[in-house]
Amino acid sequence: MKKTVLTGVKPTGNVHIGNYIGAIRPALHMAQAEHESLFFIANYHALTTIQDAKELRDNTYHVTAAWIACGLDPQKTIIYRQSDVPEIFEIAWVLSCYCPKGLMNRAHAYKAKVQLNEQEGKQDLDFGVNMGLYQYPILMASDILSFDTDFVPVGEDQIQHLEIARDIAQKINHTYKSQVLKIPQAVVQKDSKVIPGLDGQKMSKSYDNTIPLFAESKSLRKLVMKIKTDSLPPEAPKQTEGSVIFQLYKEFASQDEIATLAKRFETGIGWGDAKQALFESMDKVLTPLRDKYNALIQNPTELDQILAEGAEKARQKAKHVLERVKTSTGV
Amino acid sequence: MKKTVLTGVKPTGNVHIGNYIGAIRPALHMAQAEHESLFFIANYHALTTIQDAKELRDNTYHVTAAWIACGLDPQKTIIYRQSDVPEIFEIAWVLSCYCPKGLMNRAHAYKAKVQLNEQEGKQDLDFGVNMGLYQYPILMASDILSFDTDFVPVGEDQIQHLEIARDIAQKINHTYKSQVLKIPQAVVQKDSKVIPGLDGQKMSKSYDNTIPLFAESKSLRKLVMKIKTDSLPPEAPKQTEGSVIFQLYKEFASQDEIATLAKRFETGIGWGDAKQALFESMDKVLTPLRDKYNALIQNPTELDQILAEGAEKARQKAKHVLERVKTSTGV
Repeated sequence: MKKTVLTGVKPTGNVHIGNYIGAIRPALHMAQAEHESLFFIANYHALTTIQDAKELRDNTYHVTAAWIACGLDPQKTIIYRQSDVPEIFEIAWVLSCYCPKGLMNRAHAYKAKVQLNEQEGKQDLDFGVNMGLYQYPILMASDILSFDTDFVPVGEDQIQHLEIARDIAQKINHTYKSQVLKIPQAVVQKDSKVIPGLDGQKMSKSYDNTIPLFAESKSLRKLVMKIKTDSLPPEAPKQTEGSVIFQLYKEFASQDEIATLAKRFETGIGWGDAKQALFESMDKVLTPLRDKYNALIQNPTELDQILAEGAEKARQKAKHVLERVKTSTGV
Repeated sequence: MKKTVLTGVKPTGNVHIGNYIGAIRPALHMAQAEHESLFFIANYHALTTIQDAKELRDNTYHVTAAWIACGLDPQKTIIYRQSDVPEIFEIAWVLSCYCPKGLMNRAHAYKAKVQLNEQEGKQDLDFGVNMGLYQYPILMASDILSFDTDFVPVGEDQIQHLEIARDIAQKINHTYKSQVLKIPQAVVQKDSKVIPGLDGQKMSKSYDNTIPLFAESKSLRKLVMKIKTDSLPPEAPKQTEGSVIFQLYKEFASQDEIATLAKRFETGIGWGDAKQALFESMDKVLTPLRDKYNALIQNPTELDQILAEGAEKARQKAKHVLERVKTSTGV
């Protein structure tokens, strides 16, 4: 039996180069043939914050198309919308009956919100907290436990979520004296690379310094040309270290190309030329991805089809788990 | 369009005479032809407290058989297990994203539990509270809102639950600027009659003074003979007022019979004779119910069949609501 690895992403708009290098590419590298991999778009999680139907729907398509364009193969990875697997929500209720409220009180996202309310001098520390936000670690536990998941790649900040899932599963197994739910394991990822944005800070939507992953060549070039540089003259030798241009170049060019550009930095290169080299290497890598993305995003029917097929496979697994849960609990 | 009326009951063991007179009979009287009535066994709610599979399963059959034996007609009332309608749980998640945590903090059952912990000097006021208990008003809201329910008969103590359901539904309708969910109305029941048990206190499992509704004639007679009486001699005139025997008799006998027994009380009747009269009138009413119950409970396949047919009809309704919810929210 292959081990099951599960990854979920929230549907967000405008995937950028930072997401690609820091999250998407490493995750796709990690998807190994010896594992069965599941990948889902957590659109019901997004509902705790996105209250605009069009935005949520568009984001869901965007993220789906983005990951497939970047190399996720729906023939090898089961890709599905969270909302297409109703079993997750039924199992979530069962988990909630075995989840002490104290676990939720101590969940990071909720605690952060309470702390913020405290700092702002709010009387009601639960101000602005909806129950979706409060209990989302239970839904996350169900996302994992509903598929007999073995491994969940997580960042440092998500270890707690996996601990909660394990705690609840163990409590249920203990109560019913059987292996009702499989106990998942975290695969803790090193903190992902910090990819610099146009201004040299970490590339992030909040800093408004991103390069969209699927920008057309023309706007891609325009953005690359905007990368902040110092005012050294073209002929002056330049440091590769700390150079945004060079750092990004390393992510897209071949070893030989990287060595060549490093040499040109040493001997003096105009920033315009350096940016042009970066643009060309990026555009070469990204053009096929962009083409695939554009083809997919213009064809939501095909995306729906892919997601429906994924959901079908995912539900087969979830149904088995739900069946065990129902038999064990007596509902 | 007929208006929809919804009733739910928790699966409990051993329905007794008090439940029958105080809850089941009036509810069945209320089921009127001009309404479409839905009736469900809240087995997933029971999971917050019953952690024994056999007990939960048996209770579910017991309650189903009890209500049908008492006159619920599955041809006229849609009867289903909560757990057979997965849409309820998916919709519950959506509701939670629009339910301020404060609403749950103020829910009666949770507050009572916190107060108890306070009185007992517990450090952790959430001691012994699981998330199922904490958020059950959301599931209850979904039980109601998932079926476009118009009316929900509630006791005084449940008015808050309906208010919560209405609040959340209104918030969702407001957010998406459309009638996503139908706003249900409470039909507040007068507090149900207090039916005395064997010892004269309110009949209740907690007082261990109940008469099981489906006791066989022999044990029914035995229990009736145990009813606490005073030590007046047979020939002494007796008060009907405050007499457990007379009070129960009024629930089972005809007007004529009641008048006759009242006269015998006035002119003097031995307690043994009075109890025999009560037993006979009860047994006459209960025998057909008991026979029907016994036939049903010995045939779980038939019960499953009835519940499956009910679930099929209930899901048709819930699917429409879920479809509206999904379209409106964009998941």
